[in-house]
Amino acid sequence: MRFLDQVQAAMRKNNSLLCVGLDPLPEKFPPHIQALEQPILEFNRFIIDATADLVCAYKPQAAHYHACGAEDQLAQTIEYIKDNYPDIPVILDSKRGDIGSTADQYATEAFERYGADAITINPYMGIDTIEPFTRYEEKGTIVLCRTSNPGAAAIQNLKVGDDFLYEVIARKAKEEWNSHNNLLLVVGATNPEELKRIRAITGDMTFLVPGLGAQGGDVEATVKSGLNSQGEGIIVNSSRGIIYAASDENFAEAARAAAIELRDQVNQYR
Amino acid sequence: MRFLDQVQAAMRKNNSLLCVGLDPLPEKFPPHIQALEQPILEFNRFIIDATADLVCAYKPQAAHYHACGAEDQLAQTIEYIKDNYPDIPVILDSKRGDIGSTADQYATEAFERYGADAITINPYMGIDTIEPFTRYEEKGTIVLCRTSNPGAAAIQNLKVGDDFLYEVIARKAKEEWNSHNNLLLVVGATNPEELKRIRAITGDMTFLVPGLGAQGGDVEATVKSGLNSQGEGIIVNSSRGIIYAASDENFAEAARAAAIELRDQVNQYR
Repeated sequence: MRFLDQVQAAMRKNNSLLCVGLDPLPEKFPPHIQALEQPILEFNRFIIDATADLVCAYKPQAAHYHACGAEDQLAQTIEYIKDNYPDIPVILDSKRGDIGSTADQYATEAFERYGADAITINPYMGIDTIEPFTRYEEKGTIVLCRTSNPGAAAIQNLKVGDDFLYEVIARKAKEEWNSHNNLLLVVGATNPEELKRIRAITGDMTFLVPGLGAQGGDVEATVKSGLNSQGEGIIVNSSRGIIYAASDENFAEAARAAAIELRDQVNQYR
Repeated sequence: MRFLDQVQAAMRKNNSLLCVGLDPLPEKFPPHIQALEQPILEFNRFIIDATADLVCAYKPQAAHYHACGAEDQLAQTIEYIKDNYPDIPVILDSKRGDIGSTADQYATEAFERYGADAITINPYMGIDTIEPFTRYEEKGTIVLCRTSNPGAAAIQNLKVGDDFLYEVIARKAKEEWNSHNNLLLVVGATNPEELKRIRAITGDMTFLVPGLGAQGGDVEATVKSGLNSQGEGIIVNSSRGIIYAASDENFAEAARAAAIELRDQVNQYR
């Protein structure tokens, strides 16, 4: 099934626009998890088991695995989701971007080595660095448009003629880069006004929306600005706010409670 | 020693501005190397031994290791350089870019896990995604400015007021992002006119210049446009043009010959 169809099916099955980010920081794990042989995999399994009926996607963030040499546990985490919750697609959040021949290698990494269903990528190098991903038609390619971090505006809000740079990216994504109908955009939750502008440019395209939770975005404004004409079209990601809701032996239950809370908050404004 | 000092010392010791890119594609290796247990490491060792007196840096490209799960061989390649040719700095070419807390993890990957001396990064997300790298003062942070691939112009040459976007990046790099004096820029060799404009903006900053060799840039125009006031300031990278100069049992000698040829071509115009 194509990634966008998988996501939509999971959204409807679980009545949820929530994506849980799997950003393991072993020092934040409860001591009994830290003591295990594969602490990252075990931590992720607890989180996944506690939230799989509440989400439309999982999003492991690659740096957290690369930093400590845990590529095997990343692969096993994705395999665990595929084996146990095959309805939930997996987004590899690695924000890759490189010349065509190298982008081919990154696409191989994401889609063949790890079997991810979608990847995040950076648009600064242009279309020939995007096409090696989008040509995997079943997979999703999620292009950074307007990110949620404080320093983003100094670049992404540069004025290009009458537009902001992020609007130029949104327009290119919509009109030039989406020939396989499998492109999505990253649009942060930190500025609902911008989310609204990008929605206006892109019609019903789907956005990955980080920035709620630990980064402090406003749920009501984000949801109302981001939804597409079908009342869907946003994958709302939270990572730290859910997986580190508690750091004691009840961490998985706390994660579940935090996921329910955010899912319900989002649904309240749909 | 700081990365920029390491590079300059290696440039002078070897009379070379050449960087060899280590982009392993096992299917391009000679059959007797393909048959080894760690073909990537062995291939890299032959290339390194054949060129270490001809270069000012090595640049392993991360995707080529990630695609086939060869992170261990990447680590061992860097260790091999450090053990045998400690004067030659290593640039991890991974073009990372992510929010601050995640960028910390990527910096840990590059500088602590792999012990690289420098990393390439993407500026699209702004200063808070750059600072986690530059705060490693001994290390080099090499920011994409104007890349050498065909699709780059559609983004990097957008007009921002009277400037091109890549000029805005160059100016920010020079004036705002380089507080630790360890920032460099990626400037492709495919358009010498642009290289000249970026040189004019950035004074004596050092550039990593890909695009000669397989990508077809012009050596004379590139060198003359890129050199700084000290007759240095460019690290000229070639990957495929050197390491795949031949694919038979004489591949290392062929790589050496190709490296000598490009080094000498570059020196001819200094």
